[in-house]
Parts: sequence; structure tokens; C-alpha cells
Amino acid sequence: MTTQSAQQIPVAVEALSVPVRATVSNYPAPFLPRVAGRRKRVLGDLFGLRNFGVNLTRLGPGDSSSLHHRHGRQDEFIYVLEGEPVLVTDTGEVQLRPGHCAGFPAGGTAHHLENRGSGEVLYLEIGDRSADDPVEYPLDDLALVPDPATGRRRYAHKDGRPW
Amino acid sequence: MTTQSAQQIPVAVEALSVPVRATVSNYPAPFLPRVAGRRKRVLGDLFGLRNFGVNLTRLGPGDSSSLHHRHGRQDEFIYVLEGEPVLVTDTGEVQLRPGHCAGFPAGGTAHHLENRGSGEVLYLEIGDRSADDPVEYPLDDLALVPDPATGRRRYAHKDGRPW
Repeated sequence: MTTQSAQQIPVAVEALSVPVRATVSNYPAPFLPRVAGRRKRVLGDLFGLRNFGVNLTRLGPGDSSSLHHRHGRQDEFIYVLEGEPVLVTDTGEVQLRPGHCAGFPAGGTAHHLENRGSGEVLYLEIGDRSADDPVEYPLDDLALVPDPATGRRRYAHKDGRPW
Repeated sequence: MTTQSAQQIPVAVEALSVPVRATVSNYPAPFLPRVAGRRKRVLGDLFGLRNFGVNLTRLGPGDSSSLHHRHGRQDEFIYVLEGEPVLVTDTGEVQLRPGHCAGFPAGGTAHHLENRGSGEVLYLEIGDRSADDPVEYPLDDLALVPDPATGRRRYAHKDGRPW
């Protein structure tokens, strides 16, 4: 890793050499098993990007990329590098292979990936940082709700009670 | 390509199956030879994304990714899929290989890729759509200047004369 300034911002990195993020997920505990083997390498923040995030994410056998969800303001994009995840949307399922990509505009179909195979899945995920982004989880008793008082988002049940 | 709605937004695509964008570049004519063999497949727009763009870009031998440039408001990120481009920044040159990535925060180092080899280079490029984004070209008599009257940007010489 060659750095371009005293702030330790690298010029370029081999993505797989970046340490895996320590936090597996911020989901409330009952939902954690679905992403237990998910490993994220945070690439965009490493370079000081602020307008969007880029992660290199690995799914073990049986892992999901996330809960089935839809962003209210942020767009998302994924590009499959290795493995064959199933993309689940509101219109059904699509088998993806390396070189396949998919995009999810804010307010579009809910979605998630599942690794139903015995090998690993590796993909790039990109999402912008539009503020006050609510997230819906149509299949779970969960919502991510912007809190104007704090400027942050908090997890809630569908009836509004906090998790 | 499976579509998810009557608007012909696909659920997912094989990126290399997407047609190459017809416009090679919007640069003024004197600068076009440097990107003459560059081929962009526009992936993000295909899915209706609006907050950022994703292209799958191929460089032939001798091609540059762009002129040496720096965005004023937009962040950029690249991930190399095939080939070995040279990344040129204000601090020097770095040889990249497949699996390498680099990010360029707004206002950071100017940068571009060069394919100095005999093979092709294939990479993903991501950039957000922050409005009124000026672009500097430190090595060329060129600037991309937001025009408040039209809400668009126009190319100008460094002394302000339009190209």
C-alpha cells in the first residue's frame, strides 16, 4: 500500500488485502444469524470518499447479503466477482454469476442476495450517502427510521416501537 | 436479461452484454485521441440509478481513462477487473493489477489511468452525481465549468474562453 499523504490515504490497494470490518452487522440480534458469515471490506472510506460507499463483501454458504430491504433515498449497485448468488427481488429470483450486476434505485424493488451454494460469493456493493434515508424490510418486523432529533437512524418494529 | 417492470428496467444483467455507449467522449476535439479506444458500458443508468453512475470501461493499448483531472464535488472510485493499467496521480505512478482499487475524493489528487501494455484493461468506475461539479485538468488547457444560467457544465480554456 503506497500512501499519498501524511493522512495515510492510500493511492491504491489490493482490495482483498484490506482488513475485514470488525462489525458484522448493526441489525437487532434476532436478525444477525442471517448475515453471520458475511464479511465486509470497506474500500471507499479508505480513500476518504464521502458521497458513496464501496464494500468488497464475501458471503459464506448459507449467508444472505442483508435482510430483504428497500432504501427510500439511496441507490445501490452490486457487481459479482466470484460465486453464484441468488438475487431475490419482489418479482422473483435470478441466479447470478461472476460478471453479473444489478442496481436498485431508491424506492424500487426490495432485494437481497443469498448464497445457497457450497462455495463462497464475492461481490462489490456500492451505495450513496443521501441523508435521512429510511429503509423498509417488507418481510421482517423491522424498519430503519431517520430520527430528526439526532440526525441518525434507529431500528424500530413496524409498529414504531424501538428495537 | 429479465425485466422487472414495463419500463424495461432489468433485474440483473451480464455487464459485458450491455452495448457500448455510442459517445466515446465529450472532450473538445484536440483531446479525443487520448481516449480514442476507450469503450464505456453504462451500467448504473440501466437500472434507473440517479445518485451515482457505474461504468464498465475497457481501454485498448495506448488509451488513457481520461485526461489527468480532479473533481471539485464528486467522488470517484475504480476497481480493476482485467489488465494492468498504470495509475498516475500528483505523487507519481502506481502499477495496478486485477483486484486493485483506488478512490479519489473530491478535491483530492488529480488522476488518470494509462494502458501502456499490449493487452486490454477492464475496470469498473463509479462517480456520484453531486451538482455543480467543476473539473480541473492540471496538465491541459482545459476546465469543465458549471454554468449557473443553464445548470449544465461547459468546457473552457484555462483563461475562461469557451472551447
